[in-house]
Amino acid sequence: METCGTSCGKAAYSFLFEYDTPRIVLIRSRKVGLMNRLVQLAILGYVIGWVFVWQKGYQETDSVVSSVTTKVKGVAVTNTSQLGLRIWDVADYVIPPQGENSVFIMTNVIITLNQTQGRCPELPDKTTRCQSDADCEEGYSGIHSNGVQTGRCVVYNPAEPANKTKTCEVFAWCPVEDDEKVPQPAFLKGAENFTLLVKNNIWYPKFNFTKRNILPNISKMYLKNCTYHAVTDSFCPIFRLGDMVEAARNNFQEMAVEGGVMGLQIKWNCDLDKPASRCVPKYTFRRIDNKDSAHTVSPGYNFRFAKYYKNADGEDSRTLIKAYGIRFDIMVFGKAGKFNIIPTMINIGSGLALFGVATVLCDIIVLYCMKKKYYYREKKYKYVEDY
Amino acid sequence: METCGTSCGKAAYSFLFEYDTPRIVLIRSRKVGLMNRLVQLAILGYVIGWVFVWQKGYQETDSVVSSVTTKVKGVAVTNTSQLGLRIWDVADYVIPPQGENSVFIMTNVIITLNQTQGRCPELPDKTTRCQSDADCEEGYSGIHSNGVQTGRCVVYNPAEPANKTKTCEVFAWCPVEDDEKVPQPAFLKGAENFTLLVKNNIWYPKFNFTKRNILPNISKMYLKNCTYHAVTDSFCPIFRLGDMVEAARNNFQEMAVEGGVMGLQIKWNCDLDKPASRCVPKYTFRRIDNKDSAHTVSPGYNFRFAKYYKNADGEDSRTLIKAYGIRFDIMVFGKAGKFNIIPTMINIGSGLALFGVATVLCDIIVLYCMKKKYYYREKKYKYVEDY
Amino acid sequence: METCGTSCGKAAYSFLFEYDTPRIVLIRSRKVGLMNRLVQLAILGYVIGWVFVWQKGYQETDSVVSSVTTKVKGVAVTNTSQLGLRIWDVADYVIPPQGENSVFIMTNVIITLNQTQGRCPELPDKTTRCQSDADCEEGYSGIHSNGVQTGRCVVYNPAEPANKTKTCEVFAWCPVEDDEKVPQPAFLKGAENFTLLVKNNIWYPKFNFTKRNILPNISKMYLKNCTYHAVTDSFCPIFRLGDMVEAARNNFQEMAVEGGVMGLQIKWNCDLDKPASRCVPKYTFRRIDNKDSAHTVSPGYNFRFAKYYKNADGEDSRTLIKAYGIRFDIMVFGKAGKFNIIPTMINIGSGLALFGVATVLCDIIVLYCMKKKYYYREKKYKYVEDY
Repeated sequence: METCGTSCGKAAYSFLFEYDTPRIVLIRSRKVGLMNRLVQLAILGYVIGWVFVWQKGYQETDSVVSSVTTKVKGVAVTNTSQLGLRIWDVADYVIPPQGENSVFIMTNVIITLNQTQGRCPELPDKTTRCQSDADCEEGYSGIHSNGVQTGRCVVYNPAEPANKTKTCEVFAWCPVEDDEKVPQPAFLKGAENFTLLVKNNIWYPKFNFTKRNILPNISKMYLKNCTYHAVTDSFCPIFRLGDMVEAARNNFQEMAVEGGVMGLQIKWNCDLDKPASRCVPKYTFRRIDNKDSAHTVSPGYNFRFAKYYKNADGEDSRTLIKAYGIRFDIMVFGKAGKFNIIPTMINIGSGLALFGVATVLCDIIVLYCMKKKYYYREKKYKYVEDY
Repeated sequence: METCGTSCGKAAYSFLFEYDTPRIVLIRSRKVGLMNRLVQLAILGYVIGWVFVWQKGYQETDSVVSSVTTKVKGVAVTNTSQLGLRIWDVADYVIPPQGENSVFIMTNVIITLNQTQGRCPELPDKTTRCQSDADCEEGYSGIHSNGVQTGRCVVYNPAEPANKTKTCEVFAWCPVEDDEKVPQPAFLKGAENFTLLVKNNIWYPKFNFTKRNILPNISKMYLKNCTYHAVTDSFCPIFRLGDMVEAARNNFQEMAVEGGVMGLQIKWNCDLDKPASRCVPKYTFRRIDNKDSAHTVSPGYNFRFAKYYKNADGEDSRTLIKAYGIRFDIMVFGKAGKFNIIPTMINIGSGLALFGVATVLCDIIVLYCMKKKYYYREKKYKYVEDY
Repeated sequence: METCGTSCGKAAYSFLFEYDTPRIVLIRSRKVGLMNRLVQLAILGYVIGWVFVWQKGYQETDSVVSSVTTKVKGVAVTNTSQLGLRIWDVADYVIPPQGENSVFIMTNVIITLNQTQGRCPELPDKTTRCQSDADCEEGYSGIHSNGVQTGRCVVYNPAEPANKTKTCEVFAWCPVEDDEKVPQPAFLKGAENFTLLVKNNIWYPKFNFTKRNILPNISKMYLKNCTYHAVTDSFCPIFRLGDMVEAARNNFQEMAVEGGVMGLQIKWNCDLDKPASRCVPKYTFRRIDNKDSAHTVSPGYNFRFAKYYKNADGEDSRTLIKAYGIRFDIMVFGKAGKFNIIPTMINIGSGLALFGVATVLCDIIVLYCMKKKYYYREKKYKYVEDY
């Protein structure tokens, strides 16, 4: 401590009251001088132009938190031998009635009426066709079976006496569904004209910024009658199903037969340093399921559900529905940026460090490539011998 | 190679065994010395204080992956002329019975009993009122229609002979739903007292860190009886519906009439350099749909669904339900941070580069603003002429 | 302006055509020279090896946008006294029939048949047992009640005259559900062999890169019969339920009793600087709900729903189903990286700045620790007196 007394005081004194700055050789050379400034200009241009202006490197970013509600409108009428003249409205074709970020609209259907628990022949295919009871294993149930085999081999289609195909009998909901042939054209062709209203509320938690896709300058009157159009009505949140499928370069009537999944993508890229009114949604459409690939297992999109009934004598029966249709997944994404000191400083710091590159580059040229290199080296370096 | 022999060896030797350090002018000036240190201190303070301590610039971050399950409890009793005395439990008012990140609780309802497919007059409005059959177009179906027009013009309300309004007849589910008047007060007023249990499991994949919102120090007994309260029970995951709406500064009974969407936001901001027990959820509540805006199309939140029945003679009928209610969207978000060498080094590197700013700043003062500037310049610079 | 005339011109001239480079002391010292190079090597190694090669610091990253569809296959047969012999297929045990990122498969069930609105005794527990009508409060309905109390105290189980337990009568869907005992073993034991097909389409919006989890080199034939296996069939998107639960180190039959939530995690970490074919999904399985913790309120996973029927005389009745089962949450996450100039430059800039550390370190050693320090200091520093 005592020994430190004077020396430490002196050190602290010189630390505080002395200013050290590097000694510089100023080389009066037009070539090198200009080159140095040009390299520095390029670096400055990159830092300011690209990092700051183009990529907004001075901004902190946040990802979107979103909430979506949807509403479908439209009715369709069908006329088939199985069901007769029938009208389909929202409560019939939207299943389930409300989703979170997606809505399913049934466009085609295979209905199996009046199924009850019992024994009946399985649908004929490679594994279920049989010659005799020996071909059927009691209790067996494969992954594609409709029920559990009883061990008997029975005639498949008693309604057509000519058809002598025999299949294994199963204990199942009978009669089993025959989904060999998908109705073509699609059952609910009219779905092309249905409309989908999408209400989307977004939130950037870091900036506590919320916005809706129904912009404040949109009037109630306009909303009642508008339909989205990429050019003329790009902020109308009501979409005609046919238009969406077309915008994804697909044919609605083709897609309606086996169903599919469509992405309704809402992009919210917001520069919050600018007025909030310039933060607007951008809609794009994309078909998500694999249409054209040759190797698609269960192409399109469908699922099964049932309506359960009770007969007068208390017996259960159900109507099995294999619903083909289009699922619209509303995908909301985006980034908001706002000025923040941290990324700004990181980028400025890195930019400054890049200036060092200019000096290194010019030094190499001056000290190794120029005619007077030995002269310059002598001026720049001072040699100190250690040994 | 041979020519390189000596010169390369020499270059490698001097590259390895020579140390080059810039030559420095030490200016013994109190003013400049102090200023230099102060600028450096400010930069150091910024780098350490702001970047490292406040913004945790030494941490790598990850976004949350979340899974939510919910359970509603409560019963309500209603007494109307249409339905008589009726009790409503979870299976009646939660639709669909389970969701992913959201749960819908029906608070108001317009029920249209015993609809069957047939012909009946459309609901009167601007486009459906008619004087004669000539006003109705056969096969027409607008976007707000309940069915397809048959081309006939009929008296709307035969039950009230005084009412002579005529509307176009439609083929539809008959009688058509009359949703002009929403029941007021809300049908299921009692929903205010229902409770919502939210189970949330989060995961930060980058750090393989999982946690539940039911914290380990919460006892089973406590969970049976607790209700969330921002101050006294801020970790109880059971929320009274009325409390949530109130916390978002809304009136439950008002909101229950036309429905709405509420955001239950769970924030998981975790500093994983600290003990895991300090990583806890924070609940906030927000109303998401646009309540007060004048230009709202279909305000509130509602959707339609139907219960299907089969008469004794096999005819289909349905009960159409237009369900108004509150959808609670559980939005989970947050960021976890943990020490990582990369962001640390990026920030240190940038910070070091910023130190260069101090030297540039003081150089400008010393060389351009001080009285002795020519003296200092002479000391700092050595001029080398090229031409 | 006039005064600037010459001096500004001169300044601009010297700014453009003069090159300034720091003057350097070259110390011919093996020790210091080597040390300097070693420190620089370490920094270079860190910057190149760790930041660039290992952490891919030259890449810009984007988060995944995903869409999931699922399909379950399989049938199960049950035989109970309540329901008799019964077959369960997809339409029976998947509720709701389609979800977004999750699918629920019912594995156990408590069915309450033929409920109608009416009066009946409440299930006996601490709060509902009574001695006389005085113990029951008319109109009271607790949070765990099945209905609203009528104020009467009645014998609970008239079917068993020996059981004299009395409970408060409630107005509710009668008879009330008795969910004291969960069936054990699980009702739908066979669910272990059901299979789940997951179709996942991902999208990285920043790079406009899409991919499906059904890889292009997978044939239709393979998909028909394959089952996922971590080693042999790691890209087959068809999962056996039992395998998934086992992979998460749980027992399916145990889990089936009270239900639970499983996470099927799909990781898409893609380096888009490499061929797209190397961007493949990785499946992992995790149990999400809290199994073993002692303090779990409502363990497992279940929910209630009802099927509504109308009697011949128009009276409503319902079958209440408390469904226990496994919910599979398909969690898709991942990051894609692609070369981008901004992060590259930020990292290079920071790396260069770190080189300054080498000089600072060696300077300290040379000027403070070596024997000849005074000699070196004299060479490096030039003192300029100000006072």
